[in-house]
Amino acid sequence: MAETDQALPPSDQLAAMNLTDTVEKHAFSDRVLIRSIVGRPDGGAGLAGQRVRAGGWVKTGREQGKGTFAFLELNDGSCPANLQVIVDAGLAVLSKLVATGTCVVVDGILKVPPEGTRQKIELRVEKVVSVGEVDPAKYPIPKTKLTLEFLRDHLHLRARTNTIAAIARIRNALAFATHSFFQEHNFLYVHTPILTTSDCEGAGEMFQVTTLISESEKLEKELIKNPPPSEVDIEAARQVVSERVEAVKQLKAAKASKSEITASVAELNKAKENLSKLEERSKLKPGIPKKDGKIDYTQDFFARQAFLTVSGQLQVETYACAVSNVYTFGPTFRAEHSHTSRHLAEFWMVEPEIAFADLQDDMNCAEAYVKYMCNWLLDKCLDDMLFMAKSYDKGCIDRLRMVASIPFVRISYTEAVELLEEAVRGGKKFENEVKWGIDLASEHERYLTEVKFQKPVIVYNYPKGIKAFYMRLNDDLKTVAAMDVLVPKVGELIGGSQREERYEVIRERILEVGLPLEPYEWYLDLRRYGTVKHCGFGLGFERMILFATGIENIRDVIPFPRYPGRADL
Amino acid sequence: MAETDQALPPSDQLAAMNLTDTVEKHAFSDRVLIRSIVGRPDGGAGLAGQRVRAGGWVKTGREQGKGTFAFLELNDGSCPANLQVIVDAGLAVLSKLVATGTCVVVDGILKVPPEGTRQKIELRVEKVVSVGEVDPAKYPIPKTKLTLEFLRDHLHLRARTNTIAAIARIRNALAFATHSFFQEHNFLYVHTPILTTSDCEGAGEMFQVTTLISESEKLEKELIKNPPPSEVDIEAARQVVSERVEAVKQLKAAKASKSEITASVAELNKAKENLSKLEERSKLKPGIPKKDGKIDYTQDFFARQAFLTVSGQLQVETYACAVSNVYTFGPTFRAEHSHTSRHLAEFWMVEPEIAFADLQDDMNCAEAYVKYMCNWLLDKCLDDMLFMAKSYDKGCIDRLRMVASIPFVRISYTEAVELLEEAVRGGKKFENEVKWGIDLASEHERYLTEVKFQKPVIVYNYPKGIKAFYMRLNDDLKTVAAMDVLVPKVGELIGGSQREERYEVIRERILEVGLPLEPYEWYLDLRRYGTVKHCGFGLGFERMILFATGIENIRDVIPFPRYPGRADL
Repeated sequence: MAETDQALPPSDQLAAMNLTDTVEKHAFSDRVLIRSIVGRPDGGAGLAGQRVRAGGWVKTGREQGKGTFAFLELNDGSCPANLQVIVDAGLAVLSKLVATGTCVVVDGILKVPPEGTRQKIELRVEKVVSVGEVDPAKYPIPKTKLTLEFLRDHLHLRARTNTIAAIARIRNALAFATHSFFQEHNFLYVHTPILTTSDCEGAGEMFQVTTLISESEKLEKELIKNPPPSEVDIEAARQVVSERVEAVKQLKAAKASKSEITASVAELNKAKENLSKLEERSKLKPGIPKKDGKIDYTQDFFARQAFLTVSGQLQVETYACAVSNVYTFGPTFRAEHSHTSRHLAEFWMVEPEIAFADLQDDMNCAEAYVKYMCNWLLDKCLDDMLFMAKSYDKGCIDRLRMVASIPFVRISYTEAVELLEEAVRGGKKFENEVKWGIDLASEHERYLTEVKFQKPVIVYNYPKGIKAFYMRLNDDLKTVAAMDVLVPKVGELIGGSQREERYEVIRERILEVGLPLEPYEWYLDLRRYGTVKHCGFGLGFERMILFATGIENIRDVIPFPRYPGRADL
Repeated sequence: MAETDQALPPSDQLAAMNLTDTVEKHAFSDRVLIRSIVGRPDGGAGLAGQRVRAGGWVKTGREQGKGTFAFLELNDGSCPANLQVIVDAGLAVLSKLVATGTCVVVDGILKVPPEGTRQKIELRVEKVVSVGEVDPAKYPIPKTKLTLEFLRDHLHLRARTNTIAAIARIRNALAFATHSFFQEHNFLYVHTPILTTSDCEGAGEMFQVTTLISESEKLEKELIKNPPPSEVDIEAARQVVSERVEAVKQLKAAKASKSEITASVAELNKAKENLSKLEERSKLKPGIPKKDGKIDYTQDFFARQAFLTVSGQLQVETYACAVSNVYTFGPTFRAEHSHTSRHLAEFWMVEPEIAFADLQDDMNCAEAYVKYMCNWLLDKCLDDMLFMAKSYDKGCIDRLRMVASIPFVRISYTEAVELLEEAVRGGKKFENEVKWGIDLASEHERYLTEVKFQKPVIVYNYPKGIKAFYMRLNDDLKTVAAMDVLVPKVGELIGGSQREERYEVIRERILEVGLPLEPYEWYLDLRRYGTVKHCGFGLGFERMILFATGIENIRDVIPFPRYPGRADL
């Protein structure tokens, strides 16, 4: 945003902005991106006189001058701004162009519009190349004001709205900012598995992944088409085998020729094969295979029970304990029947893991990463952020600026509880009781970050009783080296910890929390062999988008939300 | 690689390389990355005299000088090269440092080693900060030459080997190259869902995702602990209700006091509530819920049958038809019982989708993307590529150079079949018959790209009978606008097509291939309302890594391979 250059005369301004006066060509299309016109700092004015092909969807259209021409506001999703397009009646049936949602491709010449209009440039059409029509009477998302809730029932079309498109661009920017941040700091991106046979937390409702049901349904159909042999069938086959055995015996006794005996043995073998096939088929039973009254998972695809991951942390630790700095960025799953505006069954998590690093390093990394994302949005997505500020949350840009510039407060859990108790004494009412040992509730976290400090707060050193077994036990033997990053608007954004690297201690902790050792033997191996101090954290990616945009419901910041009862498309 | 500067004297050389003579500090750790020392173009020589803290795992170690000091080759995964470390016996028990896999953190001073040694720099240790020991007798992956197959049984430790670490760095580089390429070209990264209720191809073996089994197991346990009411229990509860009804009646008849009647009605209500609870519980049956003999999926988590995605294409098209240029990069799944070296049950796909673009644009994008990745590896991963060339595939670097620089051959399917028929006439033997209409087999693809052209080949315009319904029907009504990119070493790397944007045509095609319309109504809406010419493709990410590295088995190029019978960790 070259605001400081506004005093310069237009041509110098252009030069100062280092703008060329030709439109950037789209590499894989014969049209240009609308952003490469109206997204320029000069609003496109410097491109007047250029001939271009543009394509997009009509946001609003209207016939003017008694039907002699039409104005179309065209948007192709490359930026929030539209390109104003003017089509004369001689070029197309104007009524077919003006409906919201119509797709048009046009060739034309860019012109500076008459003074006093908002646009810096407009496209005078010379040829209408193609039209994808819309029947406005049937179009599910016509122009009228639509609620986000209504749009959730039209997932396949909602990206055509200004809001969902802006969120898509912000989400994209945050994703690339994430990769850029970790790559700049020499972290390797590691793809941890979605299908897992480990349960990270030893708790957590997990989705099961199986082929047993479909296999059993396939079998059921097959058995109806082709019923299994009856006892009579099998008895008959057994009879044939006995007869063939007898026949061979008799031929041998009669010293028959070798070829006769060979032929007879062959017949016997055929009969035996037939019998064993029938016996095999007679064992087939419809329904899910069972053994000793329990489902027989040895017959499932992975020969054991498999689930969708709830976190890639344990697996990515195997890479941290080998190549030092790693991160995951992928989908994770919870089969919880939560119907809140903050929970999804499928959501994306970013989980870095750092070897040779402790809790301080962990907090430093978390703070630097969040600041980096805020700066990225301010640098590269300001137009979309302005839209969000105008439409949803007028403080969202200031919030980004604040978080990007102010050092995060860091307080221990014990200090946090003291502050909350002080607040209670001062008359503050919480639904959940405050005392040392509790897990901080969302209302407590929001109070600390939104009321008490009014900036991001990192709370560290939590009671071991409320945290996972893999967090490093502090010397006080009561707390673990865990940390949560709390931010205004969403509360907990990040949860992390230094990991317990001492074999004896972590083994003890696993037993203490009542988990079996066997499934964690591989995890224990990381401590048995060449153990290393390490730490990491997880950031809920959708929470970051809620924080950035001020959108209230998490179902609106992921393209295809999954929650109890809903998995459209 | 500043090879051209080798004639310069060392200090000028350093200046020419724009190297500083201080080690780059690690942002989130108190040690420096080994790459920031030995990964410099000068091999670290310019850093002599610097004090640093280094950490890593011992690749090889040996005591020297009758136990007076030890040499350690230290690696932290930041680059393939090791840092040579020298520890005097006074600083630590040397025998505890030298075992392969030991983790050590040391402070020391960087020195130029004596002339004639391979290293450009070594670290003389002043203090051993910490040691994570290894018992070499128990360590599952000691130094001896280990096969990739053996390592697959030790997924949690294999990233500590040179090969798997190099593959991790190459995989990371290709992933970031992918994001960089599409971001540079204004594509938005869209997270398509993993959990889906749509089947992209109308075929494909899919994994089912369910909570029905775990819910029914939970219920089963609960019913054992707390058995459902018997008929007698329910009859008794009914009896109580009747008695209470009678009691109320009598009190009313006797004109009892209001408070007496109220109390009696309250008792009646309690009895009714108890009865209905018992009746509810009596309906609970162990096992998966059924209705009309079929599994009742309305009781599953999403109130319908859900699967793991086989492709994000159909869903990402909803974004392409709204914001123009998009791509997905995420895990996809096939529940196929394939035990080959080319198939995984879970693998990563990159799927761009471009609006206002046709098959030519699609091919241009695919070729540019593959070339970009090749150049990226040559630019940023040459040390790892040299390791792969030395250890696995001596031609791999030349292959990258060739693909990065040579225009891909483009031939129609019909031409491809003619070339194959010509080869057959020339004496070439294929296992699969060659004639117009067949799906090209791997042997055919390999012949075209490895023998006939010896460079990448794009085959386009395939017979409609062997391709998916969503591919655009060509004017010949026999072929569709599909394209496959074939490369030496792996054969098919990319499959793509222009999508059918004409409502009537695609509707017809869905019916023609025998699919029901109803599940595709949302997909048809994209053609009903504001339809747009568009195209896209899918690249199997692991195949790209096989192509780049020359590794033979796909299970070795993904961190946690999943295949029939195996899902470790």
